[in-house]
Amino acid sequence: MCSVISRVGPVQRALAVTLRLKASTEGSRYAASESRRFCPGLSTRFDPLRATSRSYCSRMALTEGLLFRQLFESESSTYTYLLADTETKDAILIDPVLETIDRDLKLVHELGLNLKVAVNTHCHADHITSTGLMKKRLVGLKSAISKFSGASADILLSEGDKISFGKHCLIVRETPGHTDGCVALVSGDQSMVFTGDALLIRGCGRTDFQQGCPEKLYTSVHQKIFTLPEQCLVYPAHDYLGQTVSTVGEERKFNPRLTKSLKEFVNIMNNLNLPKPKKIDVSVPANLVCGVHQV
Amino acid sequence: MCSVISRVGPVQRALAVTLRLKASTEGSRYAASESRRFCPGLSTRFDPLRATSRSYCSRMALTEGLLFRQLFESESSTYTYLLADTETKDAILIDPVLETIDRDLKLVHELGLNLKVAVNTHCHADHITSTGLMKKRLVGLKSAISKFSGASADILLSEGDKISFGKHCLIVRETPGHTDGCVALVSGDQSMVFTGDALLIRGCGRTDFQQGCPEKLYTSVHQKIFTLPEQCLVYPAHDYLGQTVSTVGEERKFNPRLTKSLKEFVNIMNNLNLPKPKKIDVSVPANLVCGVHQV
Repeated sequence: MCSVISRVGPVQRALAVTLRLKASTEGSRYAASESRRFCPGLSTRFDPLRATSRSYCSRMALTEGLLFRQLFESESSTYTYLLADTETKDAILIDPVLETIDRDLKLVHELGLNLKVAVNTHCHADHITSTGLMKKRLVGLKSAISKFSGASADILLSEGDKISFGKHCLIVRETPGHTDGCVALVSGDQSMVFTGDALLIRGCGRTDFQQGCPEKLYTSVHQKIFTLPEQCLVYPAHDYLGQTVSTVGEERKFNPRLTKSLKEFVNIMNNLNLPKPKKIDVSVPANLVCGVHQV
Repeated sequence: MCSVISRVGPVQRALAVTLRLKASTEGSRYAASESRRFCPGLSTRFDPLRATSRSYCSRMALTEGLLFRQLFESESSTYTYLLADTETKDAILIDPVLETIDRDLKLVHELGLNLKVAVNTHCHADHITSTGLMKKRLVGLKSAISKFSGASADILLSEGDKISFGKHCLIVRETPGHTDGCVALVSGDQSMVFTGDALLIRGCGRTDFQQGCPEKLYTSVHQKIFTLPEQCLVYPAHDYLGQTVSTVGEERKFNPRLTKSLKEFVNIMNNLNLPKPKKIDVSVPANLVCGVHQV
């Protein structure tokens, strides 16, 4: 196993879940809020601004020594994220896009980073990942993707896996629904979550191709993302409206799809009638082999 | 004068500048680095990652209780910035774009903010500001722009003016060169600077229309922006490559134009041979009256 990835066994994981449920006031608050959704007489008392004030005022204070860059690829409206330890300079890249490989590698070089892992949150249908080509250009770089994605990579990720870079880490949460192999990546201090296509800002990924399943997506978002702290910053894989970030609290309150009941959500998702993604027939076969198929 | 704006008199300003020059180790470091540029034997010892580590790890820690959102308008590649005090909910908006007024007002509403001032960093040539229309929709909203812009607004800004929102503020620095009425807005703790078109990420604004002057732009950036702390985050009015943020330290080191000598810079700027901005004949007349000309 790659040295940057560590795994938690089933018993440790169950214990961790128990401890987390006991310790997490946020989880309890969410559960209480959920129960209040069905009791109109009770106010949810949700104040997005107060709830998220920590996230804006001291977002990185809990993550001392973390470099963070959000980058955008305009054709597919994809966000790529660069994270690094400012001391060791070990870095990871999330969802890099083939078209922007030169920009991304230039930045990595300028900042003097050691890029250790390029992670894809899932097998994308709308763009080709630069992971494979980047591996050819950077000796020692490892690729990573969910073991349920069907794609080949150096590291096949499972629930609870920890991707470390310097003293920082991201923890894998499996979030199937958009595809079977979707993951969310949660920072060690739960101040940030990279949601891939499972949860977008005031939206969510489609469920009408690959292994899309609205019921699974709803459950994934509610169980794996909405249980994070309210102030946790939501960084999605895409945005089509020029929004760069949201919070778990805001999405719980304002997401026009995921605030609905499961039944309503499924009905919405099954009636979007969207055109087939333009690049799906090229992107998916390429992304199944780290983006290097016929490139 | 609007209550959110306060001004510093000439004596106070001179005193403040003196104190700043004495107190600012960053300024000294920059001066030292500048002198080293002409002494190739001396290393600048610039490490962009270490120099900027504070900015990533605790960017907002110095600005407790600040809400910050970066928003993007894709047609003109313009960034709009929303800043607010999480306690009082007083907010300001920088460079809002007509096409995204609904998105921006929806966010302001969802977050429960009291939008006090909409500031333009200059009279834009590539898009129409939403400031005028926003004033019609939000009672009490004030518009602000440099007194040298030639544009009408509720507040005409000068060097050293302080735009307050709750316990936070932005300080105006005049940065002519792209236009005569360009300003940079520096957060009270100097952790962030909104550079308008004066300084872009690895670039700068054009100097070949309106009152463009490469010599003025070079002086503005070197005297008013590059003298800020190295870790100060640079938020420009535009980016065309999907980059969202830089730092003063990085731009001092890697900006391909502004790291050159004045003579080389002027030569570069005078030979860009760029096409005339598509919307200039519509945008400038509209922006001279807060964006409401024939809208």
